[in-house]
Amino acid sequence: MAKRNLYLKVLPVEEALETYFAAIKERVRICTEIVPVIHALGRITVSAVYAKYNSPLYNSAAMDGVAVVAANTKEACDFKPLVLKKDDYYVVDTGDPIKEPFDAVIMAEDLIEAEDGEIKITEPASSWQHVRPVGEDIVAHELILTSNHKIRPIDIGVLLSAGITEIEVYKRLDVAIFATGTEIIEPTAQIEEGSIIESNSRMFEGLVTEQGAAAHRLGILKDDYALIRNAVKDAAEKYDFVLVNAGSSAGTEDFTVHVLRELGEVFVHGVAIKPGKPVILGMVGNTPVVGLPGYPVSAYVCYQNFVRPLIDFLQNAPSAQSETVQAFLSKRLVSSLKHKEYVRVKVGMVDNKIIATPLARGAGAAMSLVRADGFCVIEQNQEGLDAGDKVTVELCRSVQEIENTVVSIGSHDLILDIIADMLPNKFKNMYLSSSHVGSLAGLMALKRGEAHIAPIHLLDEATGTYNIPMLKKMFTDLCRPMALIKGVQRVQGIIVPKGNPKQIQKVEDIVKHRFVNRQFGAGTRVLFDYLLKQKGIAAKDIAGYDKEASTHMAVAALVQSGAADCGMGIESAARAMDLDFVAVGHEEYDFAIEKSNLELPHIQAFIEVLKSDEFQRKVRQMGGYEFPQCGEIVLL
Amino acid sequence: MAKRNLYLKVLPVEEALETYFAAIKERVRICTEIVPVIHALGRITVSAVYAKYNSPLYNSAAMDGVAVVAANTKEACDFKPLVLKKDDYYVVDTGDPIKEPFDAVIMAEDLIEAEDGEIKITEPASSWQHVRPVGEDIVAHELILTSNHKIRPIDIGVLLSAGITEIEVYKRLDVAIFATGTEIIEPTAQIEEGSIIESNSRMFEGLVTEQGAAAHRLGILKDDYALIRNAVKDAAEKYDFVLVNAGSSAGTEDFTVHVLRELGEVFVHGVAIKPGKPVILGMVGNTPVVGLPGYPVSAYVCYQNFVRPLIDFLQNAPSAQSETVQAFLSKRLVSSLKHKEYVRVKVGMVDNKIIATPLARGAGAAMSLVRADGFCVIEQNQEGLDAGDKVTVELCRSVQEIENTVVSIGSHDLILDIIADMLPNKFKNMYLSSSHVGSLAGLMALKRGEAHIAPIHLLDEATGTYNIPMLKKMFTDLCRPMALIKGVQRVQGIIVPKGNPKQIQKVEDIVKHRFVNRQFGAGTRVLFDYLLKQKGIAAKDIAGYDKEASTHMAVAALVQSGAADCGMGIESAARAMDLDFVAVGHEEYDFAIEKSNLELPHIQAFIEVLKSDEFQRKVRQMGGYEFPQCGEIVLL
Repeated sequence: MAKRNLYLKVLPVEEALETYFAAIKERVRICTEIVPVIHALGRITVSAVYAKYNSPLYNSAAMDGVAVVAANTKEACDFKPLVLKKDDYYVVDTGDPIKEPFDAVIMAEDLIEAEDGEIKITEPASSWQHVRPVGEDIVAHELILTSNHKIRPIDIGVLLSAGITEIEVYKRLDVAIFATGTEIIEPTAQIEEGSIIESNSRMFEGLVTEQGAAAHRLGILKDDYALIRNAVKDAAEKYDFVLVNAGSSAGTEDFTVHVLRELGEVFVHGVAIKPGKPVILGMVGNTPVVGLPGYPVSAYVCYQNFVRPLIDFLQNAPSAQSETVQAFLSKRLVSSLKHKEYVRVKVGMVDNKIIATPLARGAGAAMSLVRADGFCVIEQNQEGLDAGDKVTVELCRSVQEIENTVVSIGSHDLILDIIADMLPNKFKNMYLSSSHVGSLAGLMALKRGEAHIAPIHLLDEATGTYNIPMLKKMFTDLCRPMALIKGVQRVQGIIVPKGNPKQIQKVEDIVKHRFVNRQFGAGTRVLFDYLLKQKGIAAKDIAGYDKEASTHMAVAALVQSGAADCGMGIESAARAMDLDFVAVGHEEYDFAIEKSNLELPHIQAFIEVLKSDEFQRKVRQMGGYEFPQCGEIVLL
Repeated sequence: MAKRNLYLKVLPVEEALETYFAAIKERVRICTEIVPVIHALGRITVSAVYAKYNSPLYNSAAMDGVAVVAANTKEACDFKPLVLKKDDYYVVDTGDPIKEPFDAVIMAEDLIEAEDGEIKITEPASSWQHVRPVGEDIVAHELILTSNHKIRPIDIGVLLSAGITEIEVYKRLDVAIFATGTEIIEPTAQIEEGSIIESNSRMFEGLVTEQGAAAHRLGILKDDYALIRNAVKDAAEKYDFVLVNAGSSAGTEDFTVHVLRELGEVFVHGVAIKPGKPVILGMVGNTPVVGLPGYPVSAYVCYQNFVRPLIDFLQNAPSAQSETVQAFLSKRLVSSLKHKEYVRVKVGMVDNKIIATPLARGAGAAMSLVRADGFCVIEQNQEGLDAGDKVTVELCRSVQEIENTVVSIGSHDLILDIIADMLPNKFKNMYLSSSHVGSLAGLMALKRGEAHIAPIHLLDEATGTYNIPMLKKMFTDLCRPMALIKGVQRVQGIIVPKGNPKQIQKVEDIVKHRFVNRQFGAGTRVLFDYLLKQKGIAAKDIAGYDKEASTHMAVAALVQSGAADCGMGIESAARAMDLDFVAVGHEEYDFAIEKSNLELPHIQAFIEVLKSDEFQRKVRQMGGYEFPQCGEIVLL
């Protein structure tokens, strides 16, 4: 087998940073440059900046009117207006200079115009009235900006007024970005077997740009040692910072660490962070070179922990502080003592308590980053956190947004996406956040006060009716009255490949084929188990009964890919993926809620969306839905 | 006299906005454009975006190792390892496809390598182990982004992974910016009598850029009706939005409103806002054209109130919300019922109370915008606010910064600038904010609990000593013990033009010349009054005794400009302005403080700065200072 890398030593995050920063501080010079003030927006000043000119530059009129010599106007009064001849005054607009011996301005509206350019005034002017003295706003040699100040639009205006046209600022870092990997293709390229679409480098481009540095994406390098070595060597000479994406791990074709050892020095390879362990912190010449892991979440977490502070340091920029909140964790999180772990969470406010619900923890789950409202960190010395523990969450959204968000935990349906999209469009600053854990787990979350609504579709075997019996059963011991917001009727059935090659026509046919199941507690799984029981089929006879997917769409994707021959799900999922569908029956997909929460403004908005023609039209387009009572309230 | 504009009707702010928005909504189309995803950072989505591809695209290895058929590994166990021949497996790196019939991955570290490409395993693989199923991260047709979503770096990564390479976003507005005025010059041009340096358009450029729009500054137009008309006409055809700076008021050469009436329509001219009344809201064709007043603060306030919401609306961007705090007002603010007023304030936290201290209110006081920590709004229906009133302040700085800021209110000295610059450089996140109101007013503020320190230089006429007697006198009735942080000894004297043309040698000589005084309560004024009394000179005999400037530098600037022949002040101010100086005596410039506040970390940092060699070296360079006890504490 080909050579694999070994992590000689996996360092704790803080130690890794300390080690690397020590090397950086020793070897990398923080650079400055002089730029025109008009291009200095957002840049950081190196030294204190003092005014060169006064502003105003001279004594000037503060009003439109006439300039006069105050001492010559003393006799003016109401009953005996004073006449000023042509030479006794001159007309000024605001900003015009007041030249000696003139020393006061009389406003236009206080003048009486006479003949031959003479004017009359009825009140004496006091010395300096309506005159802006030289330097009133800015005095030459006065401090305008301190050092380490981030230049704002108003600062640019004042600098220019004060005669400053160039300014020394910290250099904008030029960051080179490489993607590596023979299997990696550009997003616009033709996809072939084994292709992986390159996207991390574009995420890095965005992150680097947001930090005010200049991103230079230098394309994709094949897994070829010499090629990577030469490219990294050139980039280290030309740019201030080099990012190499992937190839940082211990795979057979992970060359980055070897390249860096040959060209320069590796200070850290492997950090006790999850996700993100294989990060490489090195230097070529005096240029920092960081190797980032390939999984998108690992790449992101490593960027935030290692690249961001370094770029801030080298640009002398203040580190951006994310807003944090204290939240209650909705479920237990086990973590190893081997690493510090970054867990993506959804955050919602229910009954005045902020609740954090962990999202998918896989390093490959990039969508979990998109969906995340924040991060919760499990320190390396913690084995995990219990449900109900108070945790600090670094937020990606504002607290105000979170307060106006309907928190939905329960069964998945495509209509949730439509509501999530429509809600903030129809109602300013109102949002839907949904976690997909299945109907039963949704009701449990509702009971624990972690969600406003639980979308459910739970069949009561005894009565053959949906949702209400289960809701009554689960909430008997509570004094809080419950309600159901009626949602949609939808068609459940068997999702099969286009053309139904295995000719699956009914539940009994599944026994002969590879099935993909839903997770325990999902309404679809309850229905499937109910059907199996009805037909007298044992779970162990179903190939793939233990293979679980957590949404209808995930089931459809597995069927489409050929990984399974069939799965249970809703018609809209089959249609979205252009698959065939064998209907098994209708079911009711509704939203369980505590009655007292019905009055919340964002819940009212949610109900308005359900009732709207626009919503029903959009849902109807997906196929497989009916709306007999959509948006109606059933009190229990 | 030339024709002046009349404000036919001055509208309240809300009514002006409503009127204009109604016209905009009727006539201006909100545009969208399709851009490559890789250039979509920070843009706003028009519609919900759904995945095109699954991610991963195929079932793929989640680990480095070998792909196997799980069903064929059932017999493997510790005491009888299973041998897999060449065809029974293939080597995979993370991300490689798992092709049927292979359905599981065994990790590299769990393998025993044998000969001839054979491997041994000691444990059966379960189906799908270490395999990322197709669509595990992103399922095709799944919602990735809702509409109206601001695209982040992580979103770009996920969009590309999901096969989306182009995206519809709201068009980036092209905003044309004109400066007008015959007296206006470019900042790099030669200054002549009457010149005004053009700076507002550069501030607008920055503000427009920060809103994510594209600023096109089209230069300076002379006050020429035809020239302005043609330029505005062309710009309204070519750009999405036109800003015309100045010429919006009622002066003789304010053409903007006439131009807009000729070319299009004026919806609003004159708004009940201070500063900012002369704003013009109009349209040429279907292009909004806004005329902004020329005073920098007016220009800024109008931009924020009228231009910002319009650009946000046309780009469909969420309006940025400034952080707000409740603060206690430190002094009375009188305002007219004629307008809504925006007052710039310094904000500090003293004794756990947030205090807002108003800054200069003039429309020309651009430095007050640079120095402001926030804005406090006096509504049109309020006649003003009393000292101690609770007010809402829109912050320009973070609350955390404000909590770590030493609040200084009192006498002005150039050393405060040096401390303000050094403090955050030597101590991370510690700041000095100083308001210059004179020594006595500073002590009053200290007494009211509005400042941490009051810089003072107050002579006790009876003893001829500085600061301690006055401090004892003013704080006798308080149970809180006071202290003095010793500052600098400085030389006070008479500031005169270079070469001392009037041959002013002593205080008595001032009588014959034009003087500029300091404001009541300033230590320098106390000293001057003391000297006058000593010499038996009456205030009324001093020409300019009533002409007040509020800092040493302002006095120096007036002497330099020729507006006054002399003024009292410190040597460093005279030297900074390259003026001559006649020493009158030494004085002590110290910092009064409540003893209990000495232990605050930012006060400790402040004292450290005072004691540092670097500080004393910098101050010595300015001239006129001694440091006999600098940084020492005197308890009273």
